[in-house]
Amino acid sequence: MCAMADAFQPFEVVRVEDQRPRWKTDRAAAEVPLEVRLNGQPFSVIMRTPGADHDLAMGFLFSEGVIAGAHEIERIDANDRLHIVNVVLPPERAVEIPAILEQRRNFVMNSSCGLCGRRTLDSLELGARAVTARWTITADTIGRLPAMLREAQWAFAETGGLHAAGLFDLEGNLETTAEDVGRHNAVDKVIGRMLQLQRLPLDRSLLFVSGRSSFEIVQKAFLGGIPLVGAVSAPSSLAIELARATGMTLLGFVRDGNFNIYAHPERVQLAVAETPPPGTAGL
Amino acid sequence: MCAMADAFQPFEVVRVEDQRPRWKTDRAAAEVPLEVRLNGQPFSVIMRTPGADHDLAMGFLFSEGVIAGAHEIERIDANDRLHIVNVVLPPERAVEIPAILEQRRNFVMNSSCGLCGRRTLDSLELGARAVTARWTITADTIGRLPAMLREAQWAFAETGGLHAAGLFDLEGNLETTAEDVGRHNAVDKVIGRMLQLQRLPLDRSLLFVSGRSSFEIVQKAFLGGIPLVGAVSAPSSLAIELARATGMTLLGFVRDGNFNIYAHPERVQLAVAETPPPGTAGL
Repeated sequence: MCAMADAFQPFEVVRVEDQRPRWKTDRAAAEVPLEVRLNGQPFSVIMRTPGADHDLAMGFLFSEGVIAGAHEIERIDANDRLHIVNVVLPPERAVEIPAILEQRRNFVMNSSCGLCGRRTLDSLELGARAVTARWTITADTIGRLPAMLREAQWAFAETGGLHAAGLFDLEGNLETTAEDVGRHNAVDKVIGRMLQLQRLPLDRSLLFVSGRSSFEIVQKAFLGGIPLVGAVSAPSSLAIELARATGMTLLGFVRDGNFNIYAHPERVQLAVAETPPPGTAGL
Repeated sequence: MCAMADAFQPFEVVRVEDQRPRWKTDRAAAEVPLEVRLNGQPFSVIMRTPGADHDLAMGFLFSEGVIAGAHEIERIDANDRLHIVNVVLPPERAVEIPAILEQRRNFVMNSSCGLCGRRTLDSLELGARAVTARWTITADTIGRLPAMLREAQWAFAETGGLHAAGLFDLEGNLETTAEDVGRHNAVDKVIGRMLQLQRLPLDRSLLFVSGRSSFEIVQKAFLGGIPLVGAVSAPSSLAIELARATGMTLLGFVRDGNFNIYAHPERVQLAVAETPPPGTAGL
């Protein structure tokens, strides 16, 4: 893991208050391209905040369907100065690399940018892999997540420029956390770290993110086997649809102890139960 | 342009306050893949909020270097139901399409995801295209931008889930605005709209965005010829570096009339001038 200091870069800026300028040194969230290679061959370039590059590369390759677990990796080489991570597959898998690269080339052309080579709803085999975890979590625990993530998120306090993702257990204890200028990178770092610890599927964990939850965030959680995703801000329509289709619980606007449940409320214990109105049972 | 109603989708949700659940109908920012085609051939899929799809497709193709202006387009066909926009190039340009697709395929493989097929710093020919606009804007005008954008941003108020981008003139009057779940899409929509109006380069305008400014945002503004970018939140390190290298003014944390200047402060009129400390003249 890189030194956390790399997550920022100092800049001289002009601070203007009441129209009066003042020179000061500010820190900005670092955004530097990382080249991910497979056995030396370029696979992708990710705009990311330096730090936890191994985790990011592993999480990204997992999300992309290239690797299913840490056991499929021979080793990871990194050149921090050149911002390159080379993931080395063992010989028996290395023979597949030309096909992996060709598949990615075709896929990226058919669904790049925003999807960025990620698998779409149709290709997720939702039915076969629905989330079935039956545990519940209390509303009180959910209410504590934003403060727990903020405490862990020391970089954000300094720059205001990083997204955070935290993995929590069912009692609301922080398992691991990551930060990045890209919200999906923060999630890849968290899942990639657990992948290396051979902790997947993460079916006794929940993911909490500092911003909004997009399709990509929910998708990555789904692939990691995480049954519940919460966010400080709003989910997108496709994030909601994916969570409903996969059996995942999706929470939004988790603030001041209150929140919205967008999908599968059965995992949330409430002080008062309420019967859903007719026609809403599918939520 | 699609009906603005498409920017939201209604969902039944459980609102939890003080641990008490209440069923209500909420609206989420719509996130739906848009397929962009060139003369019927798939070019890319963009995760976007429906609305202003023509603008988005044009701005995206401009950012990607496929088209330099509206005069290069024969027409745009759209299938709103299937979420497809087909940009038709005239016969003399259509012959280039196989080469454009091949170039994109190679480029995407070498720098996809996050960069998403966008051109990197090295390929922007910065020296030859430096921003040289010599106008100035008052700190007072800058201070009014957030409220102006918020007023225009009616969708955000309803969902909390959309990024906004606004183009303003030098007196702070709103020229045009767009919203999207993707911050770069909102900028593509704004620039794509102006491209169709044959208003590029936008060298008498400034761009203001509701969130953070990443490398991509500054890059798109640069390609559109916009000399000043401001944001409610923080810039990334690469956004600052790009703005400094290209002669663009970059503002961040524009809130309550105050802000930070990260690059080229000479375009900002202040009530009090101040001499920069030694070694900071390059800002």
